Amino acid sequence: MDVLSPDELEARLRDIGARRYHRLHPFHKLLHGGACSKGQVQAWALNRYYYQAMIPVKDASLIARCDDSDTRRQWRSRLLDHDGAREGEGGIARWLKLTDGLGLDRDYVMSLQGLLPATRFAVDAYVHFVREKTLLEGIASSLTELFSPAIISERIKGMLKNYDFVTADTLAYFAQRPPQAERDARFALDYVKRHARTAETQSRVLAALAFKCDVLWAMLDALYHAYVAPKHVPPGSFVPQE
Amino acid sequence: MDVLSPDELEARLRDIGARRYHRLHPFHKLLHGGACSKGQVQAWALNRYYYQAMIPVKDASLIARCDDSDTRRQWRSRLLDHDGAREGEGGIARWLKLTDGLGLDRDYVMSLQGLLPATRFAVDAYVHFVREKTLLEGIASSLTELFSPAIISERIKGMLKNYDFVTADTLAYFAQRPPQAERDARFALDYVKRHARTAETQSRVLAALAFKCDVLWAMLDALYHAYVAPKHVPPGSFVPQE
Repeated sequence: MDVLSPDELEARLRDIGARRYHRLHPFHKLLHGGACSKGQVQAWALNRYYYQAMIPVKDASLIARCDDSDTRRQWRSRLLDHDGAREGEGGIARWLKLTDGLGLDRDYVMSLQGLLPATRFAVDAYVHFVREKTLLEGIASSLTELFSPAIISERIKGMLKNYDFVTADTLAYFAQRPPQAERDARFALDYVKRHARTAETQSRVLAALAFKCDVLWAMLDALYHAYVAPKHVPPGSFVPQE
Repeated sequence: MDVLSPDELEARLRDIGARRYHRLHPFHKLLHGGACSKGQVQAWALNRYYYQAMIPVKDASLIARCDDSDTRRQWRSRLLDHDGAREGEGGIARWLKLTDGLGLDRDYVMSLQGLLPATRFAVDAYVHFVREKTLLEGIASSLTELFSPAIISERIKGMLKNYDFVTADTLAYFAQRPPQAERDARFALDYVKRHARTAETQSRVLAALAFKCDVLWAMLDALYHAYVAPKHVPPGSFVPQE
């Protein structure tokens, strides 16, 4: 691969999103289109909880590898967004409002007992990736947030319209996210464009974003297999009641 | 949980295998029963290659954590089994005979380009488990080998009978494995029974075996989803030609 200009690199990153972001996954179409049962929405929220819960662990792992105060400071706002300023605030707490609103027992959700093993493996792969790859690759792997504002607005609209068991209040997580995601993605994209200046680092950056798309995609594949068709729930995982 | 006697612990371990080992997975029934297309058998062999290739990495990680010469020596035979005494020997090389025999390009298999991301995440979860948990849990996670001789004999019989594209020669991997697996499982089971003497360590040992069953199970879930139904291959993964 030839060295790309920063703008060419951005175009290649956006192209990966256009082809591999989980917005294209059949499970998302079912979820937003109103084709999911309440049990399927519960399974999605319960599994996605683990992703939400591990995001600050991922972000702290990234900060821990970073020898530059400015980047650490910028990245620290993500910890605040997810963990909040005090108990009951922040993205994880808002995600639990969603699982509450869906009728899931909060202790059960937080125990991770009902989690699909494939969800755990995919999320843990993301944390390990950020710990083990270069800082630049860790930052690049966050760039799925370039594409999340669009999926979130589809999700809020689609879920409110289609499910009587979902309210604006239980979807509070999503209402807060787009401006945070836009700010974070802008910083990360700028960082990547400034620091990936060789063919090798650029190809690593592109692979990092593809990897992260794979993580999100694999989570939906596992939900589809367990809860849509053939509804083959692995031993020990959550079994919907309705 | 109360403290179990060593034999009660063994019974509980065997019970986990009876309920959660991947022998019970629908994909295995299809594979052994002759219901798979050649493309599905290829996908299975290609994905399972990554598991085989990472086993010595997992075993070396375990040896590296072990401060006792006798256990290291015992465990070292696993490296020999998988990597062989010289190029072209050992379990990984025999697995590549299988993928060769199935008509897969060896460079493609070894490049891991066609791997399902879920396979990579599951296998890497196993390697990380052995690196990050206690040595006792690492050893306990190998105990799926207690159950592998039975599945292997089913597999050889079923595959030779049902697929004209499979020969005894391409199945050489499996012919070698049962005595190795039996020796290894005996050592690991004995180690676990001698060292897990508290309720807490026993419960960790049981969880380690359940975790490992989840790894194998998740690999087959992903194969089923991508190649059996709904045949929804993730972006970039192997697409069978037949």
